[in-house]
Amino acid sequence: MTYLDHAATTPMLPEAVAAMTEALSSVGNASSLHSSGRRARRVVEESREIVAGALGARPSEVIFTAGGTESDNLAVKGIFWARRQQDPARRRVLAGAVEHHAVLDAVQWLAEHAGAEIVWLDADEHGRVHPETLREAIAVAPGEIALATVMWANNEVGTVNPMAELAAVCAEYGIPLHTDAVQAAGAVEVDFAASGVSALTVTGHKLGGPYGVGALLLARDTACVPLLHGGGQERDVRSGTLDVPAIHAFATAVGISVGGRREHAAEVGTLRDELVAAVLREVPDAVLNGAPPGPGRLPGNAHFTFPGCAGDSLLMLLDAKDIECSTGSACTAGVAQPSHVLLAMGADPVSARGSLRFSLGHDSTAADVRELAGEIGGVVTRARQAGLAGMRKQGVRQAATADVGLSGTEV
Amino acid sequence: MTYLDHAATTPMLPEAVAAMTEALSSVGNASSLHSSGRRARRVVEESREIVAGALGARPSEVIFTAGGTESDNLAVKGIFWARRQQDPARRRVLAGAVEHHAVLDAVQWLAEHAGAEIVWLDADEHGRVHPETLREAIAVAPGEIALATVMWANNEVGTVNPMAELAAVCAEYGIPLHTDAVQAAGAVEVDFAASGVSALTVTGHKLGGPYGVGALLLARDTACVPLLHGGGQERDVRSGTLDVPAIHAFATAVGISVGGRREHAAEVGTLRDELVAAVLREVPDAVLNGAPPGPGRLPGNAHFTFPGCAGDSLLMLLDAKDIECSTGSACTAGVAQPSHVLLAMGADPVSARGSLRFSLGHDSTAADVRELAGEIGGVVTRARQAGLAGMRKQGVRQAATADVGLSGTEV
Repeated sequence: MTYLDHAATTPMLPEAVAAMTEALSSVGNASSLHSSGRRARRVVEESREIVAGALGARPSEVIFTAGGTESDNLAVKGIFWARRQQDPARRRVLAGAVEHHAVLDAVQWLAEHAGAEIVWLDADEHGRVHPETLREAIAVAPGEIALATVMWANNEVGTVNPMAELAAVCAEYGIPLHTDAVQAAGAVEVDFAASGVSALTVTGHKLGGPYGVGALLLARDTACVPLLHGGGQERDVRSGTLDVPAIHAFATAVGISVGGRREHAAEVGTLRDELVAAVLREVPDAVLNGAPPGPGRLPGNAHFTFPGCAGDSLLMLLDAKDIECSTGSACTAGVAQPSHVLLAMGADPVSARGSLRFSLGHDSTAADVRELAGEIGGVVTRARQAGLAGMRKQGVRQAATADVGLSGTEV
Repeated sequence: MTYLDHAATTPMLPEAVAAMTEALSSVGNASSLHSSGRRARRVVEESREIVAGALGARPSEVIFTAGGTESDNLAVKGIFWARRQQDPARRRVLAGAVEHHAVLDAVQWLAEHAGAEIVWLDADEHGRVHPETLREAIAVAPGEIALATVMWANNEVGTVNPMAELAAVCAEYGIPLHTDAVQAAGAVEVDFAASGVSALTVTGHKLGGPYGVGALLLARDTACVPLLHGGGQERDVRSGTLDVPAIHAFATAVGISVGGRREHAAEVGTLRDELVAAVLREVPDAVLNGAPPGPGRLPGNAHFTFPGCAGDSLLMLLDAKDIECSTGSACTAGVAQPSHVLLAMGADPVSARGSLRFSLGHDSTAADVRELAGEIGGVVTRARQAGLAGMRKQGVRQAATADVGLSGTEV
């Protein structure tokens, strides 16, 4: 199998599997006072130190959560509520137009249910949010802003934002900046303290750790109302029994992926460049979306528009050849929507639908690139011959989505 | 080690460990459309059917979450918001006075931040909420009630509530009833449809599954506003990448623990009765709290007050003898508070502080009971001789809590 969907989820590192497996067989609630409980607590606190050390935070700034979606929701809603409690005038939320749905939909909910007013921050044709865009949005009414949220790197097209510059603009006005760094951590340099952001989302299964665990890095001076109330774990910001084995495995993966980031980025970046060259050779009219390969783009990301094709047809035809990738567009309940990211970057809806994301990761090889290079030309030709309407009639999409069940959202 | 704290967390069943370990090594986001994604999705949907089948729900009524605290918060806040959206007059939340903090604190937050009015439902001296109490509370203003929430079985004293009767009262008025069945599932019969409740919380690590995963059973006709917005997984009620290995292991544990419930309850109940007899023999003035052993009490629960003792001193002295149990009282950041459960049952604060919970589980043996029987008398004598003040001077409590770290909340 040629797995080119590491941005959706990447296999666990063997060391993380080992850490998890080892911890599964020990008992003890990390909040219990007896020896087993204290032993479990030590595992959690050592993990907290590893995550903090790897990402430039203090241990007390690491709030363990159930993953990226929870961290994003906690930051966006919790900081909004806290800031508004301090001053009811603070009702505006500045959010990048190309954010992940975990941020987009949380912000949207605040607007519908909690009196928030959303100010969308435009992205350029590469999907990047510029500091001047942020500054202009703030300047309209600095006293009315609850928070800003801009992703560190985009999950679809891989564009990296200038986080330190964005944070510096927010700092001038004393506005907390949250960033979803789910795709960035372990791929580009992510240093919480150095970046100057107030809150940062990271998750396990994007960097070789398990699903169901992640963290919100939250600066000590940033107030945040909890989403989950209860036993008061995690500085009272996130209640819930601590998931000791997952936290242990997550920290192991963070340590390894961040520690080996430079080598990983160089290797994966080279493979990605080969992939881009191969696709453009086989399909000369394919268009690479997002920032040019380099420091402004995630090393493992390649995202193309194939004119005249439906992305989901391409996905299924490649899947039939045992090559797995993603359309990169959100797709809920089997209903295809053109990607809001590509639309915000200026794409028209038809070409937005004709896009595919290939994402490489820690176990990607040159053979993966060769496999794709050997098939992409034929697959694109077939998709074009069949045509969008024809593909629909043949039921390729229906077959693809029928057993996806309750919902089919990617990433 | 003699582990008598299964109500805090119970070891994973070997079958659940095997299910988890097997799934850890496969890749595929359950929302991805390619083969790996669809394979992961099948694991999730098979797990959903197992959980539904074991607990008397339809598969579509199973919402996977990160555990009990999240399920409780989702039900209490989500149903409150949804009911109030339908009719702004619905601002009252009826809640048992002896609920777990995940419910208590969620309800409290709704009162402080969302205009809710809490009506506490008194418990009797055993910790039971009577249907008449619920009926009287509803009758005051039936049209103003958003929801009621009453736990299936109490986590401290093990008292089982008459859920079907409580649900019948709510049904008369068309009021949704949520129940925290975290301690009940796998211990007493829990049938979602037969009980008539609208929402039910269950979690993995209390019944032999992993931490960090649980479910909210949510009736199809019960509207619930999401806590976590994003990709739209789980009927759009709970977004977040599905934790395939944990869900697989959780379902395995639910299937086994619910399937073997009768034999388990009989075995554990016999052990518990022996434990109660042994403690009362060794410490004749100890008082068994909660309902008498029988169908009104969890089979694995024994909860005592030891007059003249501090519960946390007893806990540490037993821990020094390699016997692990719990004070059963919430204890945040190392500050002991008398249990709100015991106070609501009519206990005075001093005896509430002198209490211990022993809880048995699937790997408990007669040897565990013998170990406790051999030590409890001496430990109680030592605790009494030292006296509460003396124990504090000796720093036993400080030593016990010093390495508990950020927070020390039990269960």
